[in-house]
Amino acid sequence: MNNIERLESCLINLRDVFRRHQQVIKSKYNVSTVEMDIIQLIAMEGQKKMKDIGEAFGIKFSTLTSIVDKIEGQKLVKRVNSKTDRRSVYLTITPKGQALYENYKNYIHVIAMLMQRTISQEHFEIFVSEFEKITSKSAALSAHAHS
Amino acid sequence: MNNIERLESCLINLRDVFRRHQQVIKSKYNVSTVEMDIIQLIAMEGQKKMKDIGEAFGIKFSTLTSIVDKIEGQKLVKRVNSKTDRRSVYLTITPKGQALYENYKNYIHVIAMLMQRTISQEHFEIFVSEFEKITSKSAALSAHAHS
Repeated sequence: MNNIERLESCLINLRDVFRRHQQVIKSKYNVSTVEMDIIQLIAMEGQKKMKDIGEAFGIKFSTLTSIVDKIEGQKLVKRVNSKTDRRSVYLTITPKGQALYENYKNYIHVIAMLMQRTISQEHFEIFVSEFEKITSKSAALSAHAHS
Repeated sequence: MNNIERLESCLINLRDVFRRHQQVIKSKYNVSTVEMDIIQLIAMEGQKKMKDIGEAFGIKFSTLTSIVDKIEGQKLVKRVNSKTDRRSVYLTITPKGQALYENYKNYIHVIAMLMQRTISQEHFEIFVSEFEKITSKSAALSAHAHS
């Protein structure tokens, strides 16, 4: 295998680590992938307009409405009305939704710690710097790869 | 930010690259995340018993039946009866399902190429070797992080 093929295997393996991890959280909180992604988005970036969430995930408003009905029933998110913009409904995180997000973040922390333990100290600095260069362009990466 | 925090940001960014990529394929082929994961599994590992697929993804047989009805209707997979084991139904990939998988693999290839272009040649070898060490233990990583 050349370096590119080796790197492809790494990416597929890492993607599987993420997938398995998602599955654990999904069954723990009884949520689907898109439900979890919505919860993570508002936990990370703060409350958001329903309209903007639909656009971010490319889902129709009617579909989003039933998704939010479900996770609001599970007390993972909460609809709020804006004081300044009365026409818009916002979605905000609840303590339980925040706990789901902390669970996710904690797992990422554990993976990072295990990576540090696997890599020699000398190489870890290089690894992190190079990884940063790559992933800071992640938006560009996605755009590129689909153009 | 210390190295661990920087690495955590990298992992979250990379996970988002994967998520956005999945979304493109999902809307192109009109499949959900779990449907796509099932298609990828049998494209990668060959035909599988329905029972084993249900176990691999932690989904009930009745749920799996409706998922497979849908993606079989879309001609992405096909149910086949085993000649040697008449009690088991297997799921196999179709040319259209294979195309979905090639689409996915091709994107991973593009990401790997972009990574190579971003990293200096000298560091690329180190990066790939260290990345390999980490992700070859991906099963162990998952097990660890949830224990």
